[in-house]
Amino acid sequence: MAKITSVSPLAPAAFPELPVIDGVRFASVAAGVRYAGRTDVMLTLLDPGTTVAGVFTRSATRSANVLDCQSKIGGESDAGAAIIVNSGNSNAFTGKAGDGSVAAICAAVAKATGLPETRVFTSSTGVIGERLPHDRIIAKVDDLVAALAPGKGDEAARAIMTTDTFPKGACATVALPGGEVKIAGFAKGSGMIAPDMATMLVYIFTDAKVSRADLQTMVSEINDRSFNCITVDSDTSTSDTLLMGATGASGVEVTLADSDFAQALEGVFLDLAHQVVKDGEGATKFVTVNVTGAKTDADARTHALAIANSPLVKTAVAGEDPNWGRIVMAVGKSGAAADRDRLTIRFGDVLVAENGWVAPSYKEEDGAALMKQPEITISVDIGLGAGKATVWTCDLTHGYISINADYRS
Amino acid sequence: MAKITSVSPLAPAAFPELPVIDGVRFASVAAGVRYAGRTDVMLTLLDPGTTVAGVFTRSATRSANVLDCQSKIGGESDAGAAIIVNSGNSNAFTGKAGDGSVAAICAAVAKATGLPETRVFTSSTGVIGERLPHDRIIAKVDDLVAALAPGKGDEAARAIMTTDTFPKGACATVALPGGEVKIAGFAKGSGMIAPDMATMLVYIFTDAKVSRADLQTMVSEINDRSFNCITVDSDTSTSDTLLMGATGASGVEVTLADSDFAQALEGVFLDLAHQVVKDGEGATKFVTVNVTGAKTDADARTHALAIANSPLVKTAVAGEDPNWGRIVMAVGKSGAAADRDRLTIRFGDVLVAENGWVAPSYKEEDGAALMKQPEITISVDIGLGAGKATVWTCDLTHGYISINADYRS
Repeated sequence: MAKITSVSPLAPAAFPELPVIDGVRFASVAAGVRYAGRTDVMLTLLDPGTTVAGVFTRSATRSANVLDCQSKIGGESDAGAAIIVNSGNSNAFTGKAGDGSVAAICAAVAKATGLPETRVFTSSTGVIGERLPHDRIIAKVDDLVAALAPGKGDEAARAIMTTDTFPKGACATVALPGGEVKIAGFAKGSGMIAPDMATMLVYIFTDAKVSRADLQTMVSEINDRSFNCITVDSDTSTSDTLLMGATGASGVEVTLADSDFAQALEGVFLDLAHQVVKDGEGATKFVTVNVTGAKTDADARTHALAIANSPLVKTAVAGEDPNWGRIVMAVGKSGAAADRDRLTIRFGDVLVAENGWVAPSYKEEDGAALMKQPEITISVDIGLGAGKATVWTCDLTHGYISINADYRS
Repeated sequence: MAKITSVSPLAPAAFPELPVIDGVRFASVAAGVRYAGRTDVMLTLLDPGTTVAGVFTRSATRSANVLDCQSKIGGESDAGAAIIVNSGNSNAFTGKAGDGSVAAICAAVAKATGLPETRVFTSSTGVIGERLPHDRIIAKVDDLVAALAPGKGDEAARAIMTTDTFPKGACATVALPGGEVKIAGFAKGSGMIAPDMATMLVYIFTDAKVSRADLQTMVSEINDRSFNCITVDSDTSTSDTLLMGATGASGVEVTLADSDFAQALEGVFLDLAHQVVKDGEGATKFVTVNVTGAKTDADARTHALAIANSPLVKTAVAGEDPNWGRIVMAVGKSGAAADRDRLTIRFGDVLVAENGWVAPSYKEEDGAALMKQPEITISVDIGLGAGKATVWTCDLTHGYISINADYRS
């Protein structure tokens, strides 16, 4: 694996105190899938009555685990569910053998928990193209089941880390008319990294009572505004997976109409999504790209991603260079509608360019000072309509090259 | 400007001996647009009867010069033509003032040459967002006209360099039934670089007699297979321009039916296009990406560009890492049709992966040895159809980051 020498400078001060979610238990173990001296498998057991929703990578070369999860996620069941995740091996591009490993792990977990195999979800993250040593995982399933306990989410978050420089957790408590509900989740992912392909794995739980259909709608919609709006290097994992379970243990019913719950849930999604960006390889800056005034929201998103994925923009940010010319370039190349003379560009609250030229009020030292901040907002108004989008990214540094190039497989 | 400390390791041994093209004269001068102690303006004069064709950037924020060239390129005229190019300032994103600079330069060249302004083409490359000091260029126009001489293409090629580490030239001689014709051209471009936006400028001349319509068709079609198939960092200049002039001085008529001429011309286009990639910022490897077996040629191109633009693939090449997993990832994310289990991947002639898994015959040391070469071919067969495409790129190294980030504007 590539060596990570230190924790990201953008890492939060500490892992949050995740609340216990009634109906959810965690266990983690060191199975020796690839790493020595650390836990590398986590099991989450969800009580009967839990509804499960998920979203997955759109990659055409997605892993066996993802294909299996997608085939099961739509099912209605009161039997509860299990999620088992290993790090160290992504079981991606392992041909038919990969499908066999997933089936073997699901069978073992079903046997040990009494769940139907259709309610066992798996994720794998780590090296690709190597046969998953699933026997090592299966050998630990009984230990995992015996160790299940509430409030071990922090240990689970650590067990699924690959080259992450810090574990990622987020939570919220929501007071609703029917009572209080809790949300807690954790994630792994640090941009793409060899030989791991930066699988982003996210697991979020709540004790709210939500129908599967409503939960899936919430997860899909909020995912589009959070995890689908972050980019580290424009590359896409074959294994990205987000699973959410609603145990209903609080007895508090939640529907799509409950905006307070949706808002709190979006806060948790965004917190985790931003932590993934802040653990981007070699990242030293966290960048928010706001695009407004595009012809459509889709155009705004196209412009925002063109800016966020531009190596020239990302290296300029790394160099603390207020290089607005590269923003113009990125907008121009995006393919979405734009007019050079209608663009307005701001770094933070500093007006940089307008009317097709640098703003008369702009002072280079103002832009330069702004770019020295660890968190930077780039705002572009296209001046053509009402379409808007926000995406988040990090800078492109020598650290990224070191992690991804200064390595031999 | 970013400092270029040395010539690209991929540079050709020497600038070619460009043949004199009858009907074409060059001059270059030091006008002090931005750089000191070097030439920075070149003038090319094309004799009456010359047909001119061109292709330009598709950027929505293209420069004033490009917009002016596009408005003139379709015109039929026997008056001859002039091309004046400055380095040091791209006249891009300079608002209405940029249009004024172009008009002023065209008027001065028209006055000094007796050409109509509609036959004066301009290009500018260099810093963006700063008003072009066109008076400095206009002040040298008479000197340029007085200095016009055949066979000064090599000096012209040097005058238009910005951060290029070597001048780029190519030529061919074609024996046709009607007699021999010559082709000579030069280019500048080195991938994107701050504050220059890697404008790629290409000027190609022939003494063949070609109708404007046929010349434009040849240029457009060959451009799609050459300059439109190279990528350094996926970013797109606001000023990319290719102009070709056919003087007809040889008296040898050429039409679209003359495949020998078209083949020789494509060779010149490809030679120059490859030289631009080999001067890519920080490039240490020249990479050819061949995609076959896609559903359509368009799908093949989408896959090929996804591979060629993937930071993970490019850093793996920089690290001489035969990381075929990243090729799978890039194909998967491209959005074009693919099937994990039908992919075949080769590095050079080494079969790496097939049937959704690493090839049984593959030895890591074979792939590693292949990746140590300065020129690498990555071949992917999608296994779904007959669509194919080839693109060329370079690796992504610390040099790229140094050039683009370790710089303050």
